[in-house]
Amino acid sequence: MHWADGFIAVDWGTTNRRAYLIGADGACTREFEDDKGILSVAANGFEAEVAAIRDRLGDGPMLLAGMVGSNRGWIEVPYAPCPAGPEELARRVVRSPDGSAVLIPGVSYSNGRADVMRGEEVQLLGAVATGEIAPDCLVCHPGTHNKWVLMRDSRIQSFRTVMTGELFNLLREKSILSDLLKAEAEPGAAFAAGVDRGLEGSSLAAELFEVRANVLLGRSEREDAAAFVSGLLIGQDVRVGIGQDNALPITVMGRPELTRLYTAALAQAGFVARECDGERAFIAGARKIVELLQ
Amino acid sequence: MHWADGFIAVDWGTTNRRAYLIGADGACTREFEDDKGILSVAANGFEAEVAAIRDRLGDGPMLLAGMVGSNRGWIEVPYAPCPAGPEELARRVVRSPDGSAVLIPGVSYSNGRADVMRGEEVQLLGAVATGEIAPDCLVCHPGTHNKWVLMRDSRIQSFRTVMTGELFNLLREKSILSDLLKAEAEPGAAFAAGVDRGLEGSSLAAELFEVRANVLLGRSEREDAAAFVSGLLIGQDVRVGIGQDNALPITVMGRPELTRLYTAALAQAGFVARECDGERAFIAGARKIVELLQ
Repeated sequence: MHWADGFIAVDWGTTNRRAYLIGADGACTREFEDDKGILSVAANGFEAEVAAIRDRLGDGPMLLAGMVGSNRGWIEVPYAPCPAGPEELARRVVRSPDGSAVLIPGVSYSNGRADVMRGEEVQLLGAVATGEIAPDCLVCHPGTHNKWVLMRDSRIQSFRTVMTGELFNLLREKSILSDLLKAEAEPGAAFAAGVDRGLEGSSLAAELFEVRANVLLGRSEREDAAAFVSGLLIGQDVRVGIGQDNALPITVMGRPELTRLYTAALAQAGFVARECDGERAFIAGARKIVELLQ
Repeated sequence: MHWADGFIAVDWGTTNRRAYLIGADGACTREFEDDKGILSVAANGFEAEVAAIRDRLGDGPMLLAGMVGSNRGWIEVPYAPCPAGPEELARRVVRSPDGSAVLIPGVSYSNGRADVMRGEEVQLLGAVATGEIAPDCLVCHPGTHNKWVLMRDSRIQSFRTVMTGELFNLLREKSILSDLLKAEAEPGAAFAAGVDRGLEGSSLAAELFEVRANVLLGRSEREDAAAFVSGLLIGQDVRVGIGQDNALPITVMGRPELTRLYTAALAQAGFVARECDGERAFIAGARKIVELLQ
């Protein structure tokens, strides 16, 4: 493969994917995002989906990251155990049958507790490579499954996943609280009240029902329920995160509509966190790994 | 209405309903259960559904309890505030437009925290009436929404709801853990390990993801996941419950497949609990309220 002439990098997750065409100079020249996450692709449908990406971004070598390398994806790539840096990932990539694509392993942690990630590792190592995060820091990476990641000496040292986004979506789509959770969660008084409750470490299943009772009994406004529940979940999440390490600098990496909620909750817990754009970090991480493949 | 000649009592919940024909001697002579919970009935469909019950159980007076009296049900009946006994419920019933049915209010609690119940109050007060539970006790009433109820002087003094059943169902039906949660949860080592974790008060959203990681990394058996998650949720639930009062006798009331899981978890927490059949208690409670209506 001639990576030096440019390549395609794909962050292929559970529910969507983002594909980038990276030129010889390392800049992203074309990109697209769609909802063809791995759950929407049949087991034997990945070759066709890869071809569809090529139709749009050309026939350069392709670097695939994320759930596409899981046991529900195209080709299963065994996890790289912690501590994991770019070298550990590059050493464990798996090539596709036709040789035109390379799949990156996820990262596993297993020491008392167990955890896994697929996709976030590229963003994390990219952000270290560009200096956007420090070689030693705590990173919060919100999404469907939020990751709290301890970086040490520019490698992923350990991490803990919290299913905050998925739980919020389940509650919004199918629970008795669905009607109350349609609004967008915004920082504000209701969000802050939820964060306070979450930071206390109270029982999620009990707090959630109380949201409904408070509305039924006219004790709180329907319009505040989504922000309160978001705050409750994120407060509980932050409680887990700062339990990982509370002395290192903290960066929240991801989509701005999520990172601002987490930085607000962290501030309530007494921590100043920086925000960082995960998409740019992914491109930097993909470039870093490609350097090591050449 | 001539209640003394016998009547129909219906426990009409969110997802199913149970209807009983009670004879003049107070014994149940006919009954049925189906999945016509209020969520499956259109707003203007309740008259027809009541008629369908009459087709099966005759045209005696009808006592309706549960979510049928909620704002999503047939006729909204305002809650009776705690403390609430049979007299408080009987005083606040609402008659249907055609006069042939009476709807029982639910019970609300509002004192710092807020909570509501609809349907469980009939079982609770029935169990007190028959002596099956003590006038002063703590009752655990598992189901979609588990209730921990403090009974004082034969009345409902306060209570707290924990959405354990609903969360387990959401996780089983639609989450990333769905595949792992199809098995029936049984008491045993995996359930007990989950209870231990839940009693610690750990973060649900973090623990849940770890279940998946443990299976992916070969650290635990797929077959154990459902029992572990059930134990985790019930352990967190019991932690809330014993926080209500840990000196009173405890009774777990409901369906045997649920009550045995809760008594096992309570035993792990150091509490001996009795089990009690909720269905018989409902009939006793309906009779008690009807006595007061005559």
